[in-house]
Amino acid sequence: MTTLPDIRVGTGFDVHAYDETAPLQLAGLHWPGEPGLSGHSDGDAVCHAVVDALLSAAGLGDIGGLVGVDQPETEGAASTGFVVLALAKLGAEGFRPVNVSVQIVGNRPKFAPRREEAQRVMTALVGAPVSLSATTTDRLGFTGRGEGIAAIATALIAR
Amino acid sequence: MTTLPDIRVGTGFDVHAYDETAPLQLAGLHWPGEPGLSGHSDGDAVCHAVVDALLSAAGLGDIGGLVGVDQPETEGAASTGFVVLALAKLGAEGFRPVNVSVQIVGNRPKFAPRREEAQRVMTALVGAPVSLSATTTDRLGFTGRGEGIAAIATALIAR
Amino acid sequence: MTTLPDIRVGTGFDVHAYDETAPLQLAGLHWPGEPGLSGHSDGDAVCHAVVDALLSAAGLGDIGGLVGVDQPETEGAASTGFVVLALAKLGAEGFRPVNVSVQIVGNRPKFAPRREEAQRVMTALVGAPVSLSATTTDRLGFTGRGEGIAAIATALIAR
Repeated sequence: MTTLPDIRVGTGFDVHAYDETAPLQLAGLHWPGEPGLSGHSDGDAVCHAVVDALLSAAGLGDIGGLVGVDQPETEGAASTGFVVLALAKLGAEGFRPVNVSVQIVGNRPKFAPRREEAQRVMTALVGAPVSLSATTTDRLGFTGRGEGIAAIATALIAR
Repeated sequence: MTTLPDIRVGTGFDVHAYDETAPLQLAGLHWPGEPGLSGHSDGDAVCHAVVDALLSAAGLGDIGGLVGVDQPETEGAASTGFVVLALAKLGAEGFRPVNVSVQIVGNRPKFAPRREEAQRVMTALVGAPVSLSATTTDRLGFTGRGEGIAAIATALIAR
Repeated sequence: MTTLPDIRVGTGFDVHAYDETAPLQLAGLHWPGEPGLSGHSDGDAVCHAVVDALLSAAGLGDIGGLVGVDQPETEGAASTGFVVLALAKLGAEGFRPVNVSVQIVGNRPKFAPRREEAQRVMTALVGAPVSLSATTTDRLGFTGRGEGIAAIATALIAR
């Protein structure tokens, strides 16, 4: 008989509107010359979806409870730091990430040329394989009209 | 060598438009003073996404096949009952839920103040950890315009 | 002590606009009399989401890198072939699919009458259980306005 290991899945979803006046920070990378994302922090929708997927898998709340998105001290904060905070919360409960998969949805930036670089940065940050892929919505909806970016993340964790 | 236990993942997604004339039932809770959700049943998008994620993980169809959403006897029905029906179908095939993670997407209700209460109710209903988180879409799309609520669920089940 | 088997989750998402002049190919089936989907290939959003979920679970990139969506030789190509290509890439790394769950979001085609047929075709194609479910978005957003179809897939794989 096989005993089931203590594993859990989690889902995370985040959206940010483009802000032409801001620098773009996405998937832990800076993207020079690309329109940025609005938000209280640096608007990195990939990091935010990863945080929500990890916290949700472990039953430890969501990013709003983690970092106080309305608090002055997180204004403009690097969202990679939120991933570190989330991992610390998981670790305190004995959980570790097994892998995280993220689909980015939007017209810009063109993701393919830096996909592997972003994957290496996010994998090093999370300490487990992070896969990144990107798609568009065939000109439909707010992502298709170029109004913003969405990120959908699924995480597998174990204890 | 490690034998793989018989585990499966499932995804569920549901959307309901606001209906100001209806009471709000969401994540198994009644929300007094909040705009309700349209739908043949009580419109609880969280329960519906959970049902679809569980059924899909087990390969047992979807909520349309489970409850006959066009049938008079399910009009106004409590969606928590649909979760119970789905779990019975899983049980009959020897499956049990390991955990379920749900991301709610929308402007209202403000979810954080009752997040833990809703999580307790859904966890008791499912008989396994149910995580609930909530986000907005930065004023973009139908959720950002306050037209409705979406719920994305991922379930892990085992046999 | 239970050793964790080498398992991973992956997420995939795809959207295609309707193209009334094209035949509809969806979930590996031909749908006579239904509006088709635009796209460089046959536009089968279900196959595309399955490919992205499988590749992402294994950390092997995305469908853009797999099939060269802008290349002439994939114009009008059967997307079922992309699933076969993705499975070959997984196999070369020692991975196999455990199960895949897909939620189709859109008004047309009416999916329920052919849900089980499509599930059998996709399950045979993938060589592991593929669950298909379908929902609408209560007239909201681009799917609710009947502009296109979205597909959300979650895959579990093992090595």
